[in-house]
Amino acid sequence: MPYLFSTIGLIGKYNDASVAPTLDQIAGWLRQAGRRVLLDEQSAAHVTVRGPEVATRRLIGRQADLAIVVGGDGTLLDAARALVDFQVPIVGVNLGRLGFLTDVSPNEIPAGLDEILQGRFREELRLMLHAQVLRGEQTLSEAMALNDVVVHKRDVARMVELDTFLDGQLLNAYRSDGLIISTPTGSTAYALSCGGPILHPALEALLVAPICPHTLTHRPIVVGADAQIEICVRNTTHTQITCDGQISLPIEPGDRVVVRQKRRRMRLLHPVGHDYFELLRAKLRWGVNPEGATSNR
Amino acid sequence: MPYLFSTIGLIGKYNDASVAPTLDQIAGWLRQAGRRVLLDEQSAAHVTVRGPEVATRRLIGRQADLAIVVGGDGTLLDAARALVDFQVPIVGVNLGRLGFLTDVSPNEIPAGLDEILQGRFREELRLMLHAQVLRGEQTLSEAMALNDVVVHKRDVARMVELDTFLDGQLLNAYRSDGLIISTPTGSTAYALSCGGPILHPALEALLVAPICPHTLTHRPIVVGADAQIEICVRNTTHTQITCDGQISLPIEPGDRVVVRQKRRRMRLLHPVGHDYFELLRAKLRWGVNPEGATSNR
Amino acid sequence: MPYLFSTIGLIGKYNDASVAPTLDQIAGWLRQAGRRVLLDEQSAAHVTVRGPEVATRRLIGRQADLAIVVGGDGTLLDAARALVDFQVPIVGVNLGRLGFLTDVSPNEIPAGLDEILQGRFREELRLMLHAQVLRGEQTLSEAMALNDVVVHKRDVARMVELDTFLDGQLLNAYRSDGLIISTPTGSTAYALSCGGPILHPALEALLVAPICPHTLTHRPIVVGADAQIEICVRNTTHTQITCDGQISLPIEPGDRVVVRQKRRRMRLLHPVGHDYFELLRAKLRWGVNPEGATSNR
Amino acid sequence: MPYLFSTIGLIGKYNDASVAPTLDQIAGWLRQAGRRVLLDEQSAAHVTVRGPEVATRRLIGRQADLAIVVGGDGTLLDAARALVDFQVPIVGVNLGRLGFLTDVSPNEIPAGLDEILQGRFREELRLMLHAQVLRGEQTLSEAMALNDVVVHKRDVARMVELDTFLDGQLLNAYRSDGLIISTPTGSTAYALSCGGPILHPALEALLVAPICPHTLTHRPIVVGADAQIEICVRNTTHTQITCDGQISLPIEPGDRVVVRQKRRRMRLLHPVGHDYFELLRAKLRWGVNPEGATSNR
Repeated sequence: MPYLFSTIGLIGKYNDASVAPTLDQIAGWLRQAGRRVLLDEQSAAHVTVRGPEVATRRLIGRQADLAIVVGGDGTLLDAARALVDFQVPIVGVNLGRLGFLTDVSPNEIPAGLDEILQGRFREELRLMLHAQVLRGEQTLSEAMALNDVVVHKRDVARMVELDTFLDGQLLNAYRSDGLIISTPTGSTAYALSCGGPILHPALEALLVAPICPHTLTHRPIVVGADAQIEICVRNTTHTQITCDGQISLPIEPGDRVVVRQKRRRMRLLHPVGHDYFELLRAKLRWGVNPEGATSNR
Repeated sequence: MPYLFSTIGLIGKYNDASVAPTLDQIAGWLRQAGRRVLLDEQSAAHVTVRGPEVATRRLIGRQADLAIVVGGDGTLLDAARALVDFQVPIVGVNLGRLGFLTDVSPNEIPAGLDEILQGRFREELRLMLHAQVLRGEQTLSEAMALNDVVVHKRDVARMVELDTFLDGQLLNAYRSDGLIISTPTGSTAYALSCGGPILHPALEALLVAPICPHTLTHRPIVVGADAQIEICVRNTTHTQITCDGQISLPIEPGDRVVVRQKRRRMRLLHPVGHDYFELLRAKLRWGVNPEGATSNR
Repeated sequence: MPYLFSTIGLIGKYNDASVAPTLDQIAGWLRQAGRRVLLDEQSAAHVTVRGPEVATRRLIGRQADLAIVVGGDGTLLDAARALVDFQVPIVGVNLGRLGFLTDVSPNEIPAGLDEILQGRFREELRLMLHAQVLRGEQTLSEAMALNDVVVHKRDVARMVELDTFLDGQLLNAYRSDGLIISTPTGSTAYALSCGGPILHPALEALLVAPICPHTLTHRPIVVGADAQIEICVRNTTHTQITCDGQISLPIEPGDRVVVRQKRRRMRLLHPVGHDYFELLRAKLRWGVNPEGATSNR
Repeated sequence: MPYLFSTIGLIGKYNDASVAPTLDQIAGWLRQAGRRVLLDEQSAAHVTVRGPEVATRRLIGRQADLAIVVGGDGTLLDAARALVDFQVPIVGVNLGRLGFLTDVSPNEIPAGLDEILQGRFREELRLMLHAQVLRGEQTLSEAMALNDVVVHKRDVARMVELDTFLDGQLLNAYRSDGLIISTPTGSTAYALSCGGPILHPALEALLVAPICPHTLTHRPIVVGADAQIEICVRNTTHTQITCDGQISLPIEPGDRVVVRQKRRRMRLLHPVGHDYFELLRAKLRWGVNPEGATSNR
C-alpha cells in the first residue's frame, strides 16, 4: 500500500549552513522510512546524507506529496509561493525558535514528523494574494504573497499618495509612508507593527493598513476576501511594491497595482495539538507571566 | 395592487421634542400616500398630525412592512434591537447630521423616502449579537446588540480580569478596563476609540478588542462571525455588561457571559446611491480637504 | 556618631500577611544594626519580632530619617503620598517581582539595604501632583498623587465631556472615557495603557492623555511641570476623580478640578547600580530575548 | 531713530512661482516703510518689484534683523536651519493654508507684519537639533534640524537594527523601520504619524520614537533636552539619515549618529494673539464641529 506521503520535498533556509544537521537528520530518517526525498537545489550544498535527489522547486511542486520546510517563517513564505499552485501541503520545522508558520520544533524530530506522515495532522488552508502591476492595459509584472503586498516609498523625504479602490469604489486617497494589503496570515507580520489588528487565520478577509499615515484619522480596514483592491500611484517617484518582504516589483507614477486573493489556498499542516491562540499568546507574550510587558498601574 | 410597504412604523428619537416636526412631516406624507402608519408610543406625545395609530414596538414589529426611524444612530440601535426578530426593514432619517446608520437627510424628505417606498433602495443585512449572562447552567439575563457587547469595570480603581474563550479554546486572560465584542457595524463605534480596526459592514466577522489593556502586546482580534465567545469574570467585583451603550446587565464574579451572533440579521435600507466608503470618509474626515487632521511633516 | 539614618519607618503592603516574614527580617536586622524602628500601625499585626515601636504614618513622617516600604508599586504610591510633605526618603523592597518603584529585591536583604544605610544610594526627586475639586470658589476636596490624577466616567453608557484649560488657555474640550493627568512616574502606569509615551523620571513635565477619546485625532500632550491644569466637567453626571488608582474624590457637573505639581518632591532612593532604562526594558520586555513579543515579519 | 527691524530678509518657497505676488507685495511694502530688503537669491527670479538687494542666505544671516519667510512649514524649516546660527528672528507667512510654523495669513498683509515691525509680537525660542555621523573618531558629516533627525531604512525588505544610547547608557536596541529623534516642534510632524505624543513647544525635551517597531511593547519616550543620543547602526546596509525630511546624510554599518540639541535656539515670531492650543485644535481638527472625525458610539 502506498504511503499517504510517498514523495517528500525538503527545503532548507536559504544560504544558511546551520540548517544542514536538521536537513541531514530529516533526509536520513525519511529514507529509512522508505520515502523518496526531493532535496531543494538551493539547500543541497549543505546536505551530506546520501539518497535525496536534488530537485528544482518546480519539480518538487510537481512530484512531491508533502514539503517539509526547515528554517524560519521567511523560509516558509518563500516555499509557499513556490508550491501553492501545485497544491503541495507544507509543514514547517523551526530552528529552535517557535515561528508563526513553522511550528514543529527540531526536538520533535522524528516523532512530530512521523505523526504527520502517518496522517495525523491538522490542515489549514491559508489565503494568498496575487499582485499585478499594470500600465494602461498592459501587465508589467506580477507576484504572489502569503503575508502581504506592500506599496511603499523608497525615500523618507516624501510620502506616497495612493488612490485606493475596492471593487471599483474609491476607498481612500492615502498619504502615508505606504499601504499594506495583508492576508490573515500577514496580520501578525508587518501590519501588526503598523497598528493593525490580528485576523484569525481562517477568516475570509483582507486587511488594508496604511503605514505611518499623514492623516490621523486613518484606520486599518478589514474587507471581504473576494475584494479586488486597486492602488493608483499618484505622486512623482520613489515608489515600490514588496511581496512578503522578499520580492520587489518596480512601479512608476500612473501605474496601478491590482491585488486580489489567489484562487488556490496554501495547504499548511500542523501537529494535531496545534492551538492558534496558544501560539499567539506565546509569540506575543500574552500572559506568559504576570510580570510580562505590563505597567506600574 | 398592494404597496410594497403598506404599513409603516414610525419611530422618533426618545424623549426629544425637536424630532416632532420631522415626524409630523413624514406621518402626513405617508397618510397622503395612502399608507397605514403605526406611530411608536414613545414618540406619540410629540406628533400632532392626525391619522397615525399609536403602537407598541411589538405591534410595529408584527404589522409593519417597514420602519422609518428618525433620530441619531442611537435611536436606530434601539429600534434595531426591537425589530430584528420580526425582520422589519429599517431606514434611518437623521436630524441634519449624517449618521453611520441614519443616512437619509431631512431635506431629502419626502423624495428620498418616496424612492424607498417605490422599491428603489439598497438593502444590507447587518449582523447582530446575542449576549447571555450565565451562573452555572442558569441564564440570569440576556440582551442583544447591533453595535457591541462590552464587559467593563464600573470603578477605575481596579482592572477587570476576563478569561476569554473562543469556541471553548482559551483566547486570552485579559487584564484591562474591559473587553468589547463588536459587530462590523460597531467597529466604527466604541471599538474605534479603543484602537480597533474598521470592519466592512458585509464582513462575516466579530471584533474582540480590549479597553486600555494592562499588557502592552494585546491587540484587537477579528474572528469569524460564527465564533462563540465566552467571558469569565474572575476578579472580585465592580463588573458590568453594556449592550450598544444602552442596556446594562449586572454580573457577579464567577458568572460567564456568552456572546454569539443572532441567527437573524437586521435589515437596513439605504438610498440607492449609498456608498459606505464615502460615508466613512465623511464621518472620519478622511481627505475632506488637504488641511484636515494632518501634521507639519 | 549618629547614623545617617537613625530612625527608620517600616511600612508593609496593606492587609497582606505574606509580607510579614520580610518585615520581620528587616525589623530584626535594623534592631541589630542599632536603629530605632517605627513600624507602620497597619502592618503591625503581621510582625512578630520584638523591638519596633508601632507608629502612625504621621509619626513616621515626623520622626523617621528613612522609610523602607515592602510590597508592590501600589504600596509605595500610598507611602509616598503619606510622607512627601515630611520629605522622608523612601526605598522600596519588592515582593520578589520587580516593580517600577520597588527595586530592591528581597534576596538583596540585608546587603542591599545595608548599602543604603551606609549612604551608598542614588536619590531621585519625583514630581508629585496636587488635585483640588472646586465648586465656585470653594474647595470641596483635595488629594495628591505620585502617578496620576484621573477624571473618568463611572458608567460606560455615556462619555464624559471635559473642558480642559492650561494656565487659563483652552487646551481642548475632550469627549472620552476620561482624562489622565500623569507625572513622569505615572507615565508607565495607566497612561501607558491609553497610548501615552514614556516620560523619563527626571523630566520636568506633565502628561495629559485622554482615555478612549471619541475624536480620533486626539493625542497625548506633554506640557511643562509648572502648568496649572483645570478641568471643567460639563455633562450631567457619573464622573469621578481617582488619584493613583487609590483615592477617589466625588465631583458634580459644573465642578472644576485643578491639578498642579506639588512644591515638594518625593525622595526615592535606589541602589547605586540603578539604571532606569534597564528597568524599563525588563518591565516592558524590550529585547529580553529576540523571541519576545514580535511579529512574523 | 533706527527701526527695531531695519534690514529685512525675504525668503520665498523654493522653486514656486505662485509665491511671487506675495513676495512682491511684501517687498514693495517694506521699501515704502523705509526698510532695507535682502531678497533670498533663490526667490529672486520670481520677484519683479524694484529695490530689494539679492542676497545669499549667509548675507541675510549676517545683516538681517528679521527674516520674513513666505511658503509652507517646509520653507520655514529650511530657513530656520540657515539662520539659527545668526540668531535672526523669523516670522512665517503661509500661502493661504495655516501652517504649524507659518501663522501669518496672506490676507493679514501688511497689517499683521506691520504689527511685528512695530515691535508687537510674541517671540518663542525653538529648540533645534544637531546630528553628526561618526566613523571611529572621525566626523563624516553633520546637519541640523528644527523638526527631527530620522534614522531609517531605504528598503522595505529589512528592518534596521539600532542600538540607542542616552548619555552613554543603553536605552534600547530597536528593530524597526527607523527611529525618530524629534524636537517639540517636530512632535506634530513625522513623529505624530508614528504614534508619538505632542510636546508643548516650550518643553525642554526630546522625543525618541521608533517607526513601525518590530517589538510591540516599544513606546515613544520623552527625555530631557540636554540628553545626548547616540545611535549605532548594526545591520548590514540600507540605512540613511534624514533631517527635517529635507537633508540626507549617508551612513554605513558600524557608523554612529550623535544627536544633541544645538546651543542656539531658533527665534520664531508670532502675532500677539498667537495661541498654540488653538493652532493645534485647528490643524488636528479637534472639535472643529461635533461631527468631525468621530465614531457612531
